[in-house]
Amino acid sequence: MSSTLVLGGARSGKSVYAEGLLAGGPALYVATGQAFDDEMAERIRDHRDRRGPDWTTIEEPLELAACLDRHLSPERPILVDCLTLWISNLMHAGLDVGHQTDRLAELLRDPAGPVVLVSSEVGLGLVPDNKMAREFRDHQGRVNQKLASVCRRVVFVAAGLPLIMKDTL
Amino acid sequence: MSSTLVLGGARSGKSVYAEGLLAGGPALYVATGQAFDDEMAERIRDHRDRRGPDWTTIEEPLELAACLDRHLSPERPILVDCLTLWISNLMHAGLDVGHQTDRLAELLRDPAGPVVLVSSEVGLGLVPDNKMAREFRDHQGRVNQKLASVCRRVVFVAAGLPLIMKDTL
Amino acid sequence: MSSTLVLGGARSGKSVYAEGLLAGGPALYVATGQAFDDEMAERIRDHRDRRGPDWTTIEEPLELAACLDRHLSPERPILVDCLTLWISNLMHAGLDVGHQTDRLAELLRDPAGPVVLVSSEVGLGLVPDNKMAREFRDHQGRVNQKLASVCRRVVFVAAGLPLIMKDTL
Repeated sequence: MSSTLVLGGARSGKSVYAEGLLAGGPALYVATGQAFDDEMAERIRDHRDRRGPDWTTIEEPLELAACLDRHLSPERPILVDCLTLWISNLMHAGLDVGHQTDRLAELLRDPAGPVVLVSSEVGLGLVPDNKMAREFRDHQGRVNQKLASVCRRVVFVAAGLPLIMKDTL
Repeated sequence: MSSTLVLGGARSGKSVYAEGLLAGGPALYVATGQAFDDEMAERIRDHRDRRGPDWTTIEEPLELAACLDRHLSPERPILVDCLTLWISNLMHAGLDVGHQTDRLAELLRDPAGPVVLVSSEVGLGLVPDNKMAREFRDHQGRVNQKLASVCRRVVFVAAGLPLIMKDTL
Repeated sequence: MSSTLVLGGARSGKSVYAEGLLAGGPALYVATGQAFDDEMAERIRDHRDRRGPDWTTIEEPLELAACLDRHLSPERPILVDCLTLWISNLMHAGLDVGHQTDRLAELLRDPAGPVVLVSSEVGLGLVPDNKMAREFRDHQGRVNQKLASVCRRVVFVAAGLPLIMKDTL
């Protein structure tokens, strides 16, 4: 089954692009984000309104591999949005990002149904001042590399436009 | 008439690349930047010296749609450099970036003359700490998406080298 | 002889990709980084372990042009990792980055042996607050542009995947 990693910066249109890949039928939206403040709550509401009634939404801030294992199916594609918040959640919970990523990668090597994962590219600015931010950036980069190596397709989105980085039949 | 959006990071060579698209004849340079300090004044002078005497320069910090409407012409191409400073100017002036962008996009859908617009990609680093910076980044991303959707060509420049993201005949 | 510039963000997989270009035989690794603290020492150790015993490592924090001039040879390819630390070293030493870059570019125009250089893309985030960081970003962008203009191949790496920006036979 197909697996697609959609990379992009903030406000690059990566989520809209990823949703477009699954348009035209029911799909399962796995939200990793949690509404801790008003700004975040508003973004989550915006995303949900945009997707419309064909989509079922579930929230999974931490156990992504287990969640996908449960829900992957040839009948209904899954969109995971996004890995960046997932990494942030894992770090806050004191969990091992590397181990969780390995579990996820294992599952994505030959997924039981179509899945699209959205992730941010955060490493193209200057080195951040504080160690925590550098650690986050390192995790994000390693997660992107690891999942890019197992997903069949990798797309980089800028200004809403896709650039195909990898395409395996 | 052709419309081209040139995206790139800081010191990516995007302005030089954009100027090269219009080389070989008279052109109109629409500068959105204003020399508030010495660093900025120096950059503006450098840009102007590089373009040479074939170019006419006008300054338009805010009313970009009206300015283009007045000056677009099949005889003389226009270069707008850059949308990033324009967004910053609009925000400082308390104007509605979304509304101004819609007006600009409307005009670029079928422009009365060739036009090239330069814009920065600023969303590929970490999430900034302060709300103002996040708002700016959101505006910049939305402007790039909106204009990329109406311009015929979109080029991403890195290290002075172009990557064609969109090319419509 | 071939010269390749490998660009990418932090944790983009650019070093691993660059090493892969030279795999399968002896190579010379020119490290510009110096282990000033534990974090850096660990990264240097990790890189060295990954490359294995086929590689000879030398350290050259500042005199990169002279070092390449001495070591370039058709028999043994060179990997320079990375230009970003080199720029940082030059700035700390109060040396002229532009002049040093010109010397390096001159050498890379027609190198006496195969060489791969790794550099970071740091200009795709927001404008940094402090002048020193802006200067560093400007230097990094100019070095990338200058070397991209003379190297035969330029590759942008994201999530471990290469995007060919320039390829001259």
